[in-house]
Amino acid sequence: MSLSESVREGSRIALSRVLSQVENSTPAGKQVLDELFPYTGKAHKIGITGPPGSGKSTLVNALARQLRTLENQPRVAIIAVDPTSPFSGGAILGDRVRMLDLQGDPGIFIRSMASRGALGGLATQTEALSQVFDAAGYDFILIETVGAGQSEVDIVNLAHTTIVVDVPGLGDDIQSIKAGILEIADILVVNKADRPGADQSLRYLKSMIEMGYRPLASSAGKHRLAEAMPNLNMPELDEQLSLWIPPVLKTIARDSEGIESLVGEVLKHQKFLKETGRWQLKEAWTLREIVRKRIEGSLVLDFFQQLPVALLDKTMDDVINRKVSPASAVEILLTYNRNRNQTHYSE
Amino acid sequence: MSLSESVREGSRIALSRVLSQVENSTPAGKQVLDELFPYTGKAHKIGITGPPGSGKSTLVNALARQLRTLENQPRVAIIAVDPTSPFSGGAILGDRVRMLDLQGDPGIFIRSMASRGALGGLATQTEALSQVFDAAGYDFILIETVGAGQSEVDIVNLAHTTIVVDVPGLGDDIQSIKAGILEIADILVVNKADRPGADQSLRYLKSMIEMGYRPLASSAGKHRLAEAMPNLNMPELDEQLSLWIPPVLKTIARDSEGIESLVGEVLKHQKFLKETGRWQLKEAWTLREIVRKRIEGSLVLDFFQQLPVALLDKTMDDVINRKVSPASAVEILLTYNRNRNQTHYSE
Repeated sequence: MSLSESVREGSRIALSRVLSQVENSTPAGKQVLDELFPYTGKAHKIGITGPPGSGKSTLVNALARQLRTLENQPRVAIIAVDPTSPFSGGAILGDRVRMLDLQGDPGIFIRSMASRGALGGLATQTEALSQVFDAAGYDFILIETVGAGQSEVDIVNLAHTTIVVDVPGLGDDIQSIKAGILEIADILVVNKADRPGADQSLRYLKSMIEMGYRPLASSAGKHRLAEAMPNLNMPELDEQLSLWIPPVLKTIARDSEGIESLVGEVLKHQKFLKETGRWQLKEAWTLREIVRKRIEGSLVLDFFQQLPVALLDKTMDDVINRKVSPASAVEILLTYNRNRNQTHYSE
Repeated sequence: MSLSESVREGSRIALSRVLSQVENSTPAGKQVLDELFPYTGKAHKIGITGPPGSGKSTLVNALARQLRTLENQPRVAIIAVDPTSPFSGGAILGDRVRMLDLQGDPGIFIRSMASRGALGGLATQTEALSQVFDAAGYDFILIETVGAGQSEVDIVNLAHTTIVVDVPGLGDDIQSIKAGILEIADILVVNKADRPGADQSLRYLKSMIEMGYRPLASSAGKHRLAEAMPNLNMPELDEQLSLWIPPVLKTIARDSEGIESLVGEVLKHQKFLKETGRWQLKEAWTLREIVRKRIEGSLVLDFFQQLPVALLDKTMDDVINRKVSPASAVEILLTYNRNRNQTHYSE
């Protein structure tokens, strides 16, 4: 039996091995990913993001346990992504703790993303792992990211449902409006709701939703994609968008309070996505992003590998000595590349 | 007098206009940036980052005011970058409030980054604005970013000195170790130090520093750059690195408490950078990153603009229908591009 078949048959050992291969972008990993790809497209990918200290890991664990109690006993995968720690893999410690917490349930599989520098970035990498879980028959894939920067937005943009977790008492700064992160939320959660200020946070988030932050979300996403791939025909997303108003929930993940309601909203959102055709649009959007990011990575790698060391060093020295501006340096190097292509192909 | 001359003469109106042109990447903006570039390289760029709610804006304002009291009365620019709000420009409101706060001091100039989608990303854009301030004779450029994700790391990596701001009471989660962000810190600040838990946060950060998170920092940065530009000769950074141990300070920015010490540490770090030759290495690193990111942006834009709509749509449809894997799609599109170059140049 091939490795990809073993993964589809449910072998945890094969799954583990394939996840590592895919994460490290080995040739074997790429091949297995290709073999598994036809069997993807069924899993519900849920992105969970929010500021440090909001208790995301505890919430994700509680969510996984609650999903397991559903009638059809769905299988749940957790991918913990930690882009705040691009250098030393800070996710590892948290991962061990949560492993202990969820230990013994064969329907849950936890994976933390320790590697970096993947061709196309962390978001592409996360999506690749998702595809493995998807083909392996996992029904829900919970993708947890730390923080609220652009890389987190990129990651959760690849999910079907995005849960944004807030916590009372962080919202006293003007800067913490976090409009950008609100725009990507399908479900908003105020966790640690036994803390003072929980109701205030709840009201605040509700008022932000009412102020209409939501409609901007996917049109902005669409706009970004249209900018990146100017010659791609884009399906219309706008009409379905106004139909979903993100609910705002209170949870105390530590005590599993509010988690049943959260699962209810997740299932409601899944139904909404499928009934409006938005599930398919999201899939299409995600796959386009994947292809775009991989192409980006390849182009840059090729470019620099083919540039002579001497030319690059000389040009950069001129920049550092303020003899050549960065813009002119870019022009010099791009021109060399164009001429090289010309020479190369006319030989 | 040309616009770039007016900027160098100290005209705030010219400066304002040039900043907008540069931010919007207009042809005029690119030209002025080229004209100003020979006059850059003097300003001390300070990146300030930390989680939402840590009071960064207040700290940055207090820092600017304190720097102004130094003997040589340095001029201070503030660039507020808000990558958590890539869609709706959430920095604007905060910007107005701080404008009021620092109003009337002609030696301070505040600019918030509202635009996005810049060729090469937010970090390149920030650096371009810095160059304008630098050539205009600003001695300190404070670059404030919200959050702690990869894009913030990218931005502060372009600064000479990075201040990481923490706040008591956020550190109760395992996930909030924030190892990655600690690694980029030259100076650590526990702001809102009148809150309970401040001493605990201070001790925690100090112990993290002692545990040796620091030495990883720039070797990781160097490693990333070496990966991105494999054929570039890299100067040795490691030996100087171990000489600087990031101090950990307590501040109450609202009351300007601890800010004088903070300025002291900033000046100490400046002296350290210049005496060890690390200032020049940082400059070289930054300029290389700028060039690399711009080339990346150009390559991708060119690629997609030259791809026929029909081919892109057909390939993506095959992916969406699971007939072609993303990796194969990337291969198809890259191959088309290679053949196109061949045909194009042999004509």
